[in-house]
Amino acid sequence: MAAALRQAEGCGRGLSMEHGAAPAALPYYVAFSQLLGLTVVAMTGAWLGLYRGGIAWESSLQFNVHPLCMVIGLIFLQGDALSHLPQALLVYRVFRKEAKRTTKILHGLLHVVAFIIALVGLVAVFDFHKKKGYADLYSLHSWCGILVFVLYFVQWLMGLSFFLFPGASFSMRSRYRPQHIFFGAAIFLLSVGTALLGLKEALLFKLGTKYSTFEPEGVLANVLGLLLVSFGVAVLYILAQADWKRPSQAEEQALSMDFKTLTEGDSPSPQ
Amino acid sequence: MAAALRQAEGCGRGLSMEHGAAPAALPYYVAFSQLLGLTVVAMTGAWLGLYRGGIAWESSLQFNVHPLCMVIGLIFLQGDALSHLPQALLVYRVFRKEAKRTTKILHGLLHVVAFIIALVGLVAVFDFHKKKGYADLYSLHSWCGILVFVLYFVQWLMGLSFFLFPGASFSMRSRYRPQHIFFGAAIFLLSVGTALLGLKEALLFKLGTKYSTFEPEGVLANVLGLLLVSFGVAVLYILAQADWKRPSQAEEQALSMDFKTLTEGDSPSPQ
Repeated sequence: MAAALRQAEGCGRGLSMEHGAAPAALPYYVAFSQLLGLTVVAMTGAWLGLYRGGIAWESSLQFNVHPLCMVIGLIFLQGDALSHLPQALLVYRVFRKEAKRTTKILHGLLHVVAFIIALVGLVAVFDFHKKKGYADLYSLHSWCGILVFVLYFVQWLMGLSFFLFPGASFSMRSRYRPQHIFFGAAIFLLSVGTALLGLKEALLFKLGTKYSTFEPEGVLANVLGLLLVSFGVAVLYILAQADWKRPSQAEEQALSMDFKTLTEGDSPSPQ
Repeated sequence: MAAALRQAEGCGRGLSMEHGAAPAALPYYVAFSQLLGLTVVAMTGAWLGLYRGGIAWESSLQFNVHPLCMVIGLIFLQGDALSHLPQALLVYRVFRKEAKRTTKILHGLLHVVAFIIALVGLVAVFDFHKKKGYADLYSLHSWCGILVFVLYFVQWLMGLSFFLFPGASFSMRSRYRPQHIFFGAAIFLLSVGTALLGLKEALLFKLGTKYSTFEPEGVLANVLGLLLVSFGVAVLYILAQADWKRPSQAEEQALSMDFKTLTEGDSPSPQ
């Protein structure tokens, strides 16, 4: 009995440490990642405006729609949907039950918006290639990009079926949850890597050997590349702080109750 | 009292779930990541042998030392040092106490070997540039590469001072541990991204517009790129399964004891 009490005490302390460490600084991390993400978008716009003649659909500037849409959709908004989740969970923890439901729907919707914007970027580059008679899908950038698109779509469908449809049981959901987080992070990081490859491709195609003379465009694009890396690291850090840990029993119970409320299904409640 | 017992029971169940899920399949994940890593090294060798004239220090083939050393050191061995850790921890858990200490030293040594091999690769490219009169450090690949080198060195020093020197207390170690894992993963992923950028650079400099005609070298290099991505994902998956979770109280206590045995310092033992 005394041993059980000690275990309970140890367990409680463990949980409070876990909760104590993460949420306090999280809003600052999220704010910082937002700042980084917005800087990345602004700098992509500046690069396209200053060195690539801006953006238009009906001309050879159509190509420029591609990097802008991809950075807004698959970098900024995808990263946002990942890193905003814990912030919103935080709100839930402090305020009221409904915010958790809103958060899950917001998370799914943000990914839909990201996907649609990225789709416009994808159509732009295929249309541009077609008009110019260029080959499609020959580069590592394009292979990675198509992979990201397919995986992102599958991940979204899986998330929808596990977490929003009432069919999945509590145990299925809690087993799928860490996989969803892991593959969410992996797809996001692959998006960042694909963006770096695309940036490099655009630089080398235009600058060629002039890249080695520290042309202003090359330096600006390198800085943009480092900012993309920093944004990737910031979002991964937030995920590692907030989501990567297995939720405690108490949290799992709360989540399960919430799933029930949300889906109005008949998930078994945990004992 | 009854509530405390229930909490203890719930806590124990939570821990057993946590332990039950990860280790069983881990050796298979590690074996799979090894296979991927070796394939990446072999394919880099094949690429350099088939399309780049092989490797030599005293000729223009000196450049080829760079990608091979980087892939062996900063991709394969670095990934190895990260993903072998849990496997060895597993051995520790099942067999005997000494294996844990060996594991920690092995982890640190593997990173030293990786760093030295990567250093040879770094010297090779700077020496090659010097002989040819090429500019240094102008590309995004080189900026990311230098960043990886500096961070890798700092991370190694930090790991050494926290986990092998006797000065750090138990609480300092357990607070630093998740940071060490996170930045280890981030540096490794940045290494993979940098390798992709380098591969793309090498392809575009040589193939130019021929890249779009699906030249065999381009296709082989694209496949190599996807294998690099897969290796990165595999190592990250192993880390997320095995290391990312906060260790349980029991584990922490065991780790603390082990730190004491290893360093023979006077870390306070947890209550």
